[in-house]
Amino acid sequence: MPIGTHPGHENEETGLKSSFERVRATSLALAEGLSDADATVQSMEDASPAKWHLAHVTWFFERFVLCEHLPGYSPFDERYDYLFNSYYDAVGDRHPRPRRGLLTRPALDDVLAYRAHVDRAMGSLLSGGASDALSRLVILGLHHEQQHQELFLTDILHLFAQSPLKPAFRAPEPRLMKGAAAPLAWTRFDGGLVEIGHTGGEFAFDCEGPRHKVWLEPFEIANRAVTNEEWMEFIADGGYERSDHWLSDGWAMCLAEGWNAPLYWRKEDGEWSTMTLRGWQPVDPQAPVCHVSQYEADAYASWAGARLPSEAEWETAAAGTGARLEGNDAGTGRLSPAPQAGKGLIGLFGDVWEWTQSAYSPYPGFEAEEGAIGEYNGKFMSGQYVLRGGACSTPAGHIRTTYRNFFHPGKRWQFSGLRLARNA
Amino acid sequence: MPIGTHPGHENEETGLKSSFERVRATSLALAEGLSDADATVQSMEDASPAKWHLAHVTWFFERFVLCEHLPGYSPFDERYDYLFNSYYDAVGDRHPRPRRGLLTRPALDDVLAYRAHVDRAMGSLLSGGASDALSRLVILGLHHEQQHQELFLTDILHLFAQSPLKPAFRAPEPRLMKGAAAPLAWTRFDGGLVEIGHTGGEFAFDCEGPRHKVWLEPFEIANRAVTNEEWMEFIADGGYERSDHWLSDGWAMCLAEGWNAPLYWRKEDGEWSTMTLRGWQPVDPQAPVCHVSQYEADAYASWAGARLPSEAEWETAAAGTGARLEGNDAGTGRLSPAPQAGKGLIGLFGDVWEWTQSAYSPYPGFEAEEGAIGEYNGKFMSGQYVLRGGACSTPAGHIRTTYRNFFHPGKRWQFSGLRLARNA
Amino acid sequence: MPIGTHPGHENEETGLKSSFERVRATSLALAEGLSDADATVQSMEDASPAKWHLAHVTWFFERFVLCEHLPGYSPFDERYDYLFNSYYDAVGDRHPRPRRGLLTRPALDDVLAYRAHVDRAMGSLLSGGASDALSRLVILGLHHEQQHQELFLTDILHLFAQSPLKPAFRAPEPRLMKGAAAPLAWTRFDGGLVEIGHTGGEFAFDCEGPRHKVWLEPFEIANRAVTNEEWMEFIADGGYERSDHWLSDGWAMCLAEGWNAPLYWRKEDGEWSTMTLRGWQPVDPQAPVCHVSQYEADAYASWAGARLPSEAEWETAAAGTGARLEGNDAGTGRLSPAPQAGKGLIGLFGDVWEWTQSAYSPYPGFEAEEGAIGEYNGKFMSGQYVLRGGACSTPAGHIRTTYRNFFHPGKRWQFSGLRLARNA
Amino acid sequence: MPIGTHPGHENEETGLKSSFERVRATSLALAEGLSDADATVQSMEDASPAKWHLAHVTWFFERFVLCEHLPGYSPFDERYDYLFNSYYDAVGDRHPRPRRGLLTRPALDDVLAYRAHVDRAMGSLLSGGASDALSRLVILGLHHEQQHQELFLTDILHLFAQSPLKPAFRAPEPRLMKGAAAPLAWTRFDGGLVEIGHTGGEFAFDCEGPRHKVWLEPFEIANRAVTNEEWMEFIADGGYERSDHWLSDGWAMCLAEGWNAPLYWRKEDGEWSTMTLRGWQPVDPQAPVCHVSQYEADAYASWAGARLPSEAEWETAAAGTGARLEGNDAGTGRLSPAPQAGKGLIGLFGDVWEWTQSAYSPYPGFEAEEGAIGEYNGKFMSGQYVLRGGACSTPAGHIRTTYRNFFHPGKRWQFSGLRLARNA
Repeated sequence: MPIGTHPGHENEETGLKSSFERVRATSLALAEGLSDADATVQSMEDASPAKWHLAHVTWFFERFVLCEHLPGYSPFDERYDYLFNSYYDAVGDRHPRPRRGLLTRPALDDVLAYRAHVDRAMGSLLSGGASDALSRLVILGLHHEQQHQELFLTDILHLFAQSPLKPAFRAPEPRLMKGAAAPLAWTRFDGGLVEIGHTGGEFAFDCEGPRHKVWLEPFEIANRAVTNEEWMEFIADGGYERSDHWLSDGWAMCLAEGWNAPLYWRKEDGEWSTMTLRGWQPVDPQAPVCHVSQYEADAYASWAGARLPSEAEWETAAAGTGARLEGNDAGTGRLSPAPQAGKGLIGLFGDVWEWTQSAYSPYPGFEAEEGAIGEYNGKFMSGQYVLRGGACSTPAGHIRTTYRNFFHPGKRWQFSGLRLARNA
Repeated sequence: MPIGTHPGHENEETGLKSSFERVRATSLALAEGLSDADATVQSMEDASPAKWHLAHVTWFFERFVLCEHLPGYSPFDERYDYLFNSYYDAVGDRHPRPRRGLLTRPALDDVLAYRAHVDRAMGSLLSGGASDALSRLVILGLHHEQQHQELFLTDILHLFAQSPLKPAFRAPEPRLMKGAAAPLAWTRFDGGLVEIGHTGGEFAFDCEGPRHKVWLEPFEIANRAVTNEEWMEFIADGGYERSDHWLSDGWAMCLAEGWNAPLYWRKEDGEWSTMTLRGWQPVDPQAPVCHVSQYEADAYASWAGARLPSEAEWETAAAGTGARLEGNDAGTGRLSPAPQAGKGLIGLFGDVWEWTQSAYSPYPGFEAEEGAIGEYNGKFMSGQYVLRGGACSTPAGHIRTTYRNFFHPGKRWQFSGLRLARNA
Repeated sequence: MPIGTHPGHENEETGLKSSFERVRATSLALAEGLSDADATVQSMEDASPAKWHLAHVTWFFERFVLCEHLPGYSPFDERYDYLFNSYYDAVGDRHPRPRRGLLTRPALDDVLAYRAHVDRAMGSLLSGGASDALSRLVILGLHHEQQHQELFLTDILHLFAQSPLKPAFRAPEPRLMKGAAAPLAWTRFDGGLVEIGHTGGEFAFDCEGPRHKVWLEPFEIANRAVTNEEWMEFIADGGYERSDHWLSDGWAMCLAEGWNAPLYWRKEDGEWSTMTLRGWQPVDPQAPVCHVSQYEADAYASWAGARLPSEAEWETAAAGTGARLEGNDAGTGRLSPAPQAGKGLIGLFGDVWEWTQSAYSPYPGFEAEEGAIGEYNGKFMSGQYVLRGGACSTPAGHIRTTYRNFFHPGKRWQFSGLRLARNA
Repeated sequence: MPIGTHPGHENEETGLKSSFERVRATSLALAEGLSDADATVQSMEDASPAKWHLAHVTWFFERFVLCEHLPGYSPFDERYDYLFNSYYDAVGDRHPRPRRGLLTRPALDDVLAYRAHVDRAMGSLLSGGASDALSRLVILGLHHEQQHQELFLTDILHLFAQSPLKPAFRAPEPRLMKGAAAPLAWTRFDGGLVEIGHTGGEFAFDCEGPRHKVWLEPFEIANRAVTNEEWMEFIADGGYERSDHWLSDGWAMCLAEGWNAPLYWRKEDGEWSTMTLRGWQPVDPQAPVCHVSQYEADAYASWAGARLPSEAEWETAAAGTGARLEGNDAGTGRLSPAPQAGKGLIGLFGDVWEWTQSAYSPYPGFEAEEGAIGEYNGKFMSGQYVLRGGACSTPAGHIRTTYRNFFHPGKRWQFSGLRLARNA
């Protein structure tokens, strides 16, 4: 089942209402096969219950759209304002994040009823057409929901990985793509005074702009992401045992957490296996390495005599190739990274989010929006690093060349890998 | 619905099989009204999911009875040996206790099917009569299951108390008993050389014996448990604000945890309310105080110019009155402590477990049993304190005059209160 | 240099003033050879700086004796009331215990001047004779100081053990006693209705009374403490690797702390060495094992098919032998446990504190004193276990048959070992 | 007494040997007045004992210069290699950082003897002239020692601030400068394609290069640092009580640490006082605010309708003014920030390190040096933020326009403040 549609595209072609329905339906499809318990448990502080994701994105529409724009709208349950606010301080108190997994009520069925209630009201609201302001809000809400569709996948994988039973989120059907990765090659870019950032027009998050000039020295970037086979060489060469190539903070975390391989990997009888959304599987040597932290990615790059690209380099490379925004995203239904084969710069979009060396910080001239919506991005611009390009968990149509994802450099439960770069 | 029957009694009167069926049915009745999610989540390390309780007690019969005594018995699922072992090191590895809440699978329905599978096999086994050794094992398993019936209640209360929605485990029907508690009075005992501990005969846990002599100085014991009203006076007098009456470890925990009232209490508009198995309720001033730690109980007793009784004093008092083993236990269906009214020593059984001043330690001559069963009690004889008399959460028929319950002195989520004592 | 004199004895023979001078001189002697830095650093929360011990015991005399009983006494420095109060809540605020090591000022020399100031004033006070009440207070202060003399030694050993340089507190001169320990043998006691606790008369801490009756079953007690050689057998037999013989709390701590031998032991080239007050030394196989927790002692006893004695058994055995209060205490100057050789019950006093199975709790009829002095013992009667008999770190003349030392069962930095007992 | 001389300058004028002697003498001067205990204690993990600083910088010369370049050099003490290595993994094992405060031995006097030993050997080595490679190493060692001279001051301030006695590191003599700060004003810069980074020639740390192009949008920068008076307005306006202006990570730390003012501030009778190197002092409203984290600085800037400058903006502003590298550094002997008065851009150097919005990351083309020396900067380029301009604690002659200091954004014990910037 393909996950994700492009709300922005859809909007221009067939109307906002239709986009709304498709994005919302995708979330429902994700929940198929989950039990009430699966949807309730929180496996760590970073993760949220599936049920919470489904309710929170709905609350976003209720709180910021319906309560403001649909006269006479009656909230489904007054208490949900407290339960399903994520981090909008401006809206009021909220249930503490680490305690989201204690909410056995409302049940999954109640949350689905909540979704239906809000969908009906949104249907009424959108049937009458939408002002530009309303339209912008709804589109933001849809992109927001797509982000949570991805988190839904990363979080359910983490939960199932904790179980000794290793349940499969989706059936372990035969892989769609197979074969060998392309040999490592380098593409050169001259750099100079380039521009990056969103150009306006279609939807983008506030942090993607303003578009601005950046000076780049000449650089080279790898044609594809680092593979599992290459990562195994790093392990075999003592990559996790010696501090030489590690950042100081990274090495401290490596020791503290006892890292010796990507998250979810375990060696059994000399062979690496790993947890996936299709259950417990052998590691495919030709596929991109996944579930590594930025610290590990940085250490690997140093070990390989290279470095991580800056986000400006990455975006310049992606824009320069005229690459289409296509790849192994959640729309393919594979739900795991696939070997990247072909010519030229490949695999920029989909498969794995690619860590950059760039701290997540405001672009020159960035201004957060007023009010609660302004808390969306700006306040996270500290201590996190930028990832680019989307992954096999990213809804189809959600990614852009200018898209900036961000996580703390020690996090590993996203579908995160890396692509090498070096000075030309 | 009354919770609990006396497996020991039943056995002698109507047969072991009948006892087995009644105790097992009681557990099933407890699960009524719980969702899969309710039964899955673990609200803290000390607590276990309802589903886990239901499965673990079943595993006890499968592992220690069926696998050993029923030829050709086929385990329901080989993996349950790992999942549902609690702490029997002799049996092998087990799922770590703090991670019990991550087991969204097996679902509640699967656990119920597991119970049915084991119940059928046990039915076959017991139909043919039982040797003394087998009979002893089964009776131990039934008492073990009753202990988990009580923990089921304490743990589900803790879980529901974490929810902002404050769900009611059972409907908040009108209280069965009401009215005023008896005025505080004291009963004197001469002490001297007494005997305590189990006399043999009916079932008892190994830690209740051997029966042995203890010298007691003359003492007095209160006619009833300390009430909520009395506890409010302690609060009002700064009981939680000054260290004078606290043990050193207790005061340290009081500060660290920010205690200012019993667990679950909250003051709203000048009135105390509390979480109960029948939802969010006003605190009944005449009912025994509940959900206090031994540290708080000790501080209260000191503040009141008295002390906690030793377990030998408590047992001597209970035995001396010829008190019947009756009271507000789970069999009454009230599920909360009731005001203790009447003459003489009252409320010794039911309502609240009564903290003693006695560290849980082996009686003279105590020997743990051989093998895994020997891990039942002995290894916990350090750092814990004895509670006596059972509570409103204790299955009917499960309590005895010699029964020794035990918890760390800082724990508050059991139905624990206190009765005062003093030197005569 | 012998450490310790008996303040009680001295008092009766040659006067309180003379006792005062001797005990105070002993503390000064302990400080010889320590640098200002040695005397300042706090190596863990449980330990205190040497300087702090020297000042705190002096503050005890200043605060409770001089300020109350010497008209016109002028405190040495008003700020010391805050700095050197240990835990007397009734006296007022105090410097937090974990931050004692941050007090680089006052310097060791200042503290010595403080001692001289108080000693002069005490000299004046005591020259004029002392009322019974005053005399009792001063004697309490002297016993208090002796306790801190012992802690001074345990804490400086812990500090020096943290240093890679392994400094010796005292020169590693030839051991005073050598040779083999006596073979293990058992002495039987009939038990019955015995009396334990302090009889009055000479000084004792409040927790040692009242004297009271206890019923004991017949028991046997080992002639000597467990030796290092025996402990090595326990290690070799997997004592630290399997949970069988451990209490549940003990095993959890063993895993959490990574215990695999007594504190300070390290195996180098197949031989065990250990940190001592005379520097880094080979472990003497014939000497009593030292620096083990009660958890380890209990596990060892179980492994050896025995158990720890109760404190009533220990005291009955000690009293029954008419044993003289002599042994390898700090007065011998050896400062480490010595092999226990000889006939009958030996080594009850000195060498190592012997863990009992008894939780530290109030004797029947115990009442703490009024005021700050009443905080001395009673508030610690929770979560701790009793040790008996004194050690090589205990000042000469400080020990009694009824003496109750107490620590949390996981602590190992005292000179603590064990003697086996079993049911007769 | 002025702290610091410029080793680079000195070298060119009067020779390397003379520079060496002056820098080393400055360290000795810092230690004047410290007791052995003062020099030993470690007040938190981030800080090091004064003694450790004095020994570690000496070890740097012994290990990297003398052992490599002086034939026949005999180390002062073989064990110091283990004790005084800071973080050079390539050199071997080392004493763990959080345990530096447990080293009561060697004593301060021993460390001074160690310094003399190394100084004599360095004198011999340098008397014969120095190759370029050797010269570069020695100059690096001198700049390294100057960095530790600054840390010596920040760490001793932190230690003394923990003491209830609030000792003064230097006498609270009359302040050298007084008066009012200049009114806030803004200087505009056009930006465009600028160059930043070290140009070569004189000494710089590797992280200051290579010099490279950066594109800047037009910006304005404040004429002076934010003052204590302005910060008090931020406090009075609820700056520490509402999350609006805080970064998400910053607000979490603000809550967790209970921040409500800069480090060391305390309000007494309505007036703010603070700990300084000259003891407990009233806060000077006109002086730059000091001891604030980057989180606080960022929140303040947002509250003030401005932002922090990027490091490229800061350096461009500093270079553009032709500002002389002069200011209230440690050479003035004031040892606390002074009111910044005057025209134009003032106070860029000295007083307080100014937090920027720039994550500490490698400049384009940056390559760490080979071997242990390469661990100096590169491995810290994660999770830290850049500060510019030096402080009242920075040795005279140590600062440069291109100098990049860096700390984690939550740290407050450095002399860190801020200067506002905004888009033009």
